[in-house]
Amino acid sequence: MIVGTTPRFRQIILEVSKPLSLLFIWDVAVTAFHFYMPIKEPPLPTALFGTALALFLGFRTNAAYARWWEARTLWGALINASRSITRLTLTYSKTPNGPNLAFRESVITRQMAFAHSMRCQLRGQNPRGDISRLAGEDIADAAMQRRNPANVILESISGLYADALAAGRIDTIQQGVAERVLIDIANAQGGMERIKNTPLPNGFQFFPNLFSRLFCLLLPIALVETLGIATPIGSTLISLVFLAILSIGDDLTDPFANSVHDIPLTAMSTTIEIDLSQALGRPGPEPLKPDRGILW
Amino acid sequence: MIVGTTPRFRQIILEVSKPLSLLFIWDVAVTAFHFYMPIKEPPLPTALFGTALALFLGFRTNAAYARWWEARTLWGALINASRSITRLTLTYSKTPNGPNLAFRESVITRQMAFAHSMRCQLRGQNPRGDISRLAGEDIADAAMQRRNPANVILESISGLYADALAAGRIDTIQQGVAERVLIDIANAQGGMERIKNTPLPNGFQFFPNLFSRLFCLLLPIALVETLGIATPIGSTLISLVFLAILSIGDDLTDPFANSVHDIPLTAMSTTIEIDLSQALGRPGPEPLKPDRGILW
Amino acid sequence: MIVGTTPRFRQIILEVSKPLSLLFIWDVAVTAFHFYMPIKEPPLPTALFGTALALFLGFRTNAAYARWWEARTLWGALINASRSITRLTLTYSKTPNGPNLAFRESVITRQMAFAHSMRCQLRGQNPRGDISRLAGEDIADAAMQRRNPANVILESISGLYADALAAGRIDTIQQGVAERVLIDIANAQGGMERIKNTPLPNGFQFFPNLFSRLFCLLLPIALVETLGIATPIGSTLISLVFLAILSIGDDLTDPFANSVHDIPLTAMSTTIEIDLSQALGRPGPEPLKPDRGILW
Amino acid sequence: MIVGTTPRFRQIILEVSKPLSLLFIWDVAVTAFHFYMPIKEPPLPTALFGTALALFLGFRTNAAYARWWEARTLWGALINASRSITRLTLTYSKTPNGPNLAFRESVITRQMAFAHSMRCQLRGQNPRGDISRLAGEDIADAAMQRRNPANVILESISGLYADALAAGRIDTIQQGVAERVLIDIANAQGGMERIKNTPLPNGFQFFPNLFSRLFCLLLPIALVETLGIATPIGSTLISLVFLAILSIGDDLTDPFANSVHDIPLTAMSTTIEIDLSQALGRPGPEPLKPDRGILW
Amino acid sequence: MIVGTTPRFRQIILEVSKPLSLLFIWDVAVTAFHFYMPIKEPPLPTALFGTALALFLGFRTNAAYARWWEARTLWGALINASRSITRLTLTYSKTPNGPNLAFRESVITRQMAFAHSMRCQLRGQNPRGDISRLAGEDIADAAMQRRNPANVILESISGLYADALAAGRIDTIQQGVAERVLIDIANAQGGMERIKNTPLPNGFQFFPNLFSRLFCLLLPIALVETLGIATPIGSTLISLVFLAILSIGDDLTDPFANSVHDIPLTAMSTTIEIDLSQALGRPGPEPLKPDRGILW
Repeated sequence: MIVGTTPRFRQIILEVSKPLSLLFIWDVAVTAFHFYMPIKEPPLPTALFGTALALFLGFRTNAAYARWWEARTLWGALINASRSITRLTLTYSKTPNGPNLAFRESVITRQMAFAHSMRCQLRGQNPRGDISRLAGEDIADAAMQRRNPANVILESISGLYADALAAGRIDTIQQGVAERVLIDIANAQGGMERIKNTPLPNGFQFFPNLFSRLFCLLLPIALVETLGIATPIGSTLISLVFLAILSIGDDLTDPFANSVHDIPLTAMSTTIEIDLSQALGRPGPEPLKPDRGILW
Repeated sequence: MIVGTTPRFRQIILEVSKPLSLLFIWDVAVTAFHFYMPIKEPPLPTALFGTALALFLGFRTNAAYARWWEARTLWGALINASRSITRLTLTYSKTPNGPNLAFRESVITRQMAFAHSMRCQLRGQNPRGDISRLAGEDIADAAMQRRNPANVILESISGLYADALAAGRIDTIQQGVAERVLIDIANAQGGMERIKNTPLPNGFQFFPNLFSRLFCLLLPIALVETLGIATPIGSTLISLVFLAILSIGDDLTDPFANSVHDIPLTAMSTTIEIDLSQALGRPGPEPLKPDRGILW
Repeated sequence: MIVGTTPRFRQIILEVSKPLSLLFIWDVAVTAFHFYMPIKEPPLPTALFGTALALFLGFRTNAAYARWWEARTLWGALINASRSITRLTLTYSKTPNGPNLAFRESVITRQMAFAHSMRCQLRGQNPRGDISRLAGEDIADAAMQRRNPANVILESISGLYADALAAGRIDTIQQGVAERVLIDIANAQGGMERIKNTPLPNGFQFFPNLFSRLFCLLLPIALVETLGIATPIGSTLISLVFLAILSIGDDLTDPFANSVHDIPLTAMSTTIEIDLSQALGRPGPEPLKPDRGILW
Repeated sequence: MIVGTTPRFRQIILEVSKPLSLLFIWDVAVTAFHFYMPIKEPPLPTALFGTALALFLGFRTNAAYARWWEARTLWGALINASRSITRLTLTYSKTPNGPNLAFRESVITRQMAFAHSMRCQLRGQNPRGDISRLAGEDIADAAMQRRNPANVILESISGLYADALAAGRIDTIQQGVAERVLIDIANAQGGMERIKNTPLPNGFQFFPNLFSRLFCLLLPIALVETLGIATPIGSTLISLVFLAILSIGDDLTDPFANSVHDIPLTAMSTTIEIDLSQALGRPGPEPLKPDRGILW
Repeated sequence: MIVGTTPRFRQIILEVSKPLSLLFIWDVAVTAFHFYMPIKEPPLPTALFGTALALFLGFRTNAAYARWWEARTLWGALINASRSITRLTLTYSKTPNGPNLAFRESVITRQMAFAHSMRCQLRGQNPRGDISRLAGEDIADAAMQRRNPANVILESISGLYADALAAGRIDTIQQGVAERVLIDIANAQGGMERIKNTPLPNGFQFFPNLFSRLFCLLLPIALVETLGIATPIGSTLISLVFLAILSIGDDLTDPFANSVHDIPLTAMSTTIEIDLSQALGRPGPEPLKPDRGILW
């Protein structure tokens, strides 16, 4: 996620400078050609083309933004539920005896491992290191034998509650409240996997790109007769508007892409680790700082 | 669902080549006719027609996309709830004795059968084979005697919990937590049947198709006077924009249609089967691979 | 709800033929008048009028569609909750002794009666026949003495659970799970009554109709100078677009109107009756078939 | 809420006649001035101004409608929860002995008082009369000593359940189910207070009014050269469209304003009183009838 | 939040006067230059630029408004849940003995401290003073040692319930109902932190500002040929529309910014303190009054 101001500007210039240069060269070429061999093109089709395209891009950007915000909200739900399962666990193990301390230690470190595992799975990375660091080798081994390691961690937290029930430290009502929170966590997990695995419909990706590029190619031809020598400037400017709206939509479609436009999963899973460590009375890691204007 | 890149391109060309050729022939015919017998048509009505139509198609695409995403979200809810009922069942049968092992085996395989049965029912296929393969002949026989086989499977899972309660292996609180998950499953099931059985309102299907086609027919007549010999190119391009937006909306309206644009139910019910099999300690089937860029 | 294809087409022609004929006559009259006494009107105000009107109609159609889909979703929630209360009741009365069989019989038939009663109440029909057929004369008598008969049925189902609790066949936890489902049913009922009793705001009904009609009247006057003899065709076509968008919005605003555009409540309450009858081990009624392309 | 048809028409004419007359006079003045001292103004800026303004008004109307519908939905949630707490209370006090009858009487009349109190608080009226009429002087005294009287009523219902628990007539599980319904009621209450206390953002109120009025002033100046003597008619018509969309948005922004455009709180709190009285076996008041086309 | 009317007007004039003056000077300069050295620019690109930009700004304003309203709704959820945890606590401690009075005192004052702490954290202020004033030095010390002080307060409320359970004053079911409310509070807290920490995507902030400013610079050049001496007025007016829509979007993007456009957190946390104090039978502080038309 882009958070800084200065590098943001430089980065935007880097991003758009290449397509803008190509566009400008094309616009100059069309203008030059026009002065050698004048063509006649009325303004209407471009206006109609442009209006329809702007509407289409507008609705698409709307849909892409809703996806991105839903992704962020789902990770937020994971943060909330991580705190809630921690609060419940502390409350259920309030008397600080041996089994209680072991219980809260296991549940809360596994919940940290769950958050890091989700981050890795969503970004296509191997979660083994984080799971074994936080929840131990045994859980890491069991998790990596399954298609979805995070599921194993969640099942193991549920198992810790079953053990506490069997030992008489909690009753089935308290187990039920905790299981409802685990269901919330599973729903957040599934929602994020849904966004990861289901791209925007093909037509929302292929056609906007095709039409925007076609529009930028045709625009100087339509404008050159009336704009004359000013065509490259006018045409490049309007093309820039359309390409910018197109790129905003593209940037938002994959919120777990591990790119500068994604959701800062590393920062947020570190936040979960800090909050949960501090609830266990430990200092926790340092919060992640933005790296040249980008929070990962 | 279209996931590949290369075949996607070829397929789009195949899809649009026929209407595009017809449009182009019409545009050429109008242009040729114009040079024999010039007609005079002002640009205004086309601009107004086009703007109103673009807005109408935009709102329709918005509604169709919301349907499609709701369908995907509901199937996602089924995935989440399948994992949750599995996690609960494992937790409630943690001591690995005979009745517990039989209980978890029955519940989890029936939940797999439920997912496959929903896939078949939504796509108008016979779910008998999948139900009998996973949950046994008895359940399959009982399921097929009812209008809605998936309902029978859900009732039978509820019945397994009632048996566990009667045998004293769980208490009513644990049953209650599980029943809440079954209610979530029933809500996801009913939501998908709602989308399947309730098409977009008639007016959202008939009029956009009628108006888009009329618009494409009228466009060259309106443009030919000003565009002259370039009419076929200009008219075909703008028509393509409108037909593309129309087809995107059409593709998204039936997300359970068993077409290339639908939601990949086969892949997703296989994912449920893998996750639940692995939770039972079995390997599970292979994940479904895309077939020439299409995930079914 | 319109489901067929052939009658749909014939019906649409019937619906639009009268306003279209009137429009066409008006357009011809304006054109004829123009050739006798030419008037001069610039195109601008019509373009601005048309764009603003198209936007307004677009947002209105959006709101009307959301209402219609919310109505359908709420009835879907009633279907889901009907199945859930049935599944719970079967589970809670799993031992097939006398009181249990009577309990499940009473609860499930009353739930069928509830669905039919909601259908009648939403459509302004008398629910007495359906209630007495399914739940017996006593319930029907009690229900008809109140402003809202469906409420009585829901209270009586709650009362059956209270009886089962008093007799020791269920405990308060099981009662609580069932009461949560009854709360879901009450929420769906109240939501449907809200849509029934609260029309779209007055301004969303009066002004779009006024402006669309004014626009259709003014359009030929604005077009006749440039379109000449082709005015009736051009003007009627564009008017058709605006009237069609207007009528789609009007059709969707009252989803419980017992018209061809409403939600098929009869078919859906029959589906509930079939599913619940089959859960009781009975054949249930035949599913409702579309009648000349209309499902009621 | 406007429900009638005839008075609606008369009322709309009354509402719009004054601004329309002023506009028409201005349009005539501009036209007259034009014929004495011709000015030259191109159509473009008005078209661009009008399109941007129409879009802005469209999105604003959308937001205002969503507020209004949310307000209606929240009051609907209060209706639903009133029925649910009534149903639960009847069920928990099924044996008709003295304490049970007193319990159901107290809970249900206080819930009626809650609905009326909410109505008064939202409309800035004094709820004392309604509370004391329904729930007695003691509750009314206690309620009026607090900033938010409805809160006191809700706390007193919760207290009645606590008393029933202390007397052993219900257990903590049944109390928990009832408390969940009271939480739903508190959420609906808080949601309505949120809409009441948080107007649309300042910029959504000030700028649309400013721009629409400016647009209406400038329109005849821009049109007069091309429309000539027909300017007052054309300009007034288009201004009417913009002013109508503006007024629809304004009417919907304050759904608890006690104006003709608000939500009929009096009718709906009377409906709650009828339903709950009948559940207690009493006739209840008469339903509120529309008064000259307006339901209050 | 702006609530007054008179100062609102003055403040808006102050806000827009500087950019408007600059714009006007630029528009006059362009016009003056035009009369010395006439340039020729056709209207089309500006119309297309303006339409695309208006659409883009419209969708952006929509997204910004949704964020702002979600923020307000989440704080509303905190108000509702504060009342619910208060109501539950009063009910669970109905017998007015020593431990019960201490219990309700501690829970309710800590909930007040939670609200004030959230306000400070969202606005980047130090919550220590408010926490220590309401919940005591011990809680304040513990809270300030953690990254997120509000979490500590919530955990301590949960701990008070655990103590009440250990002392036998409530049972696990009553604890479970209260914990569900604490989960609602944690969800509201997390949602507000999400909005605070996740700005609108970079592209939604950078490009609208860039394009709107470019548009205002280009507009007089495009208009001057047709508008002549009236250019500064026409151009400034249209620029004002675009800049106003831009600024509305900007004002809404950061609802916790402690600016005049934010959500009145101070007023709302004071409201929570009043309501909860009065529930404890104390007068509570004075409600916050708007300060020169601004409620903080």
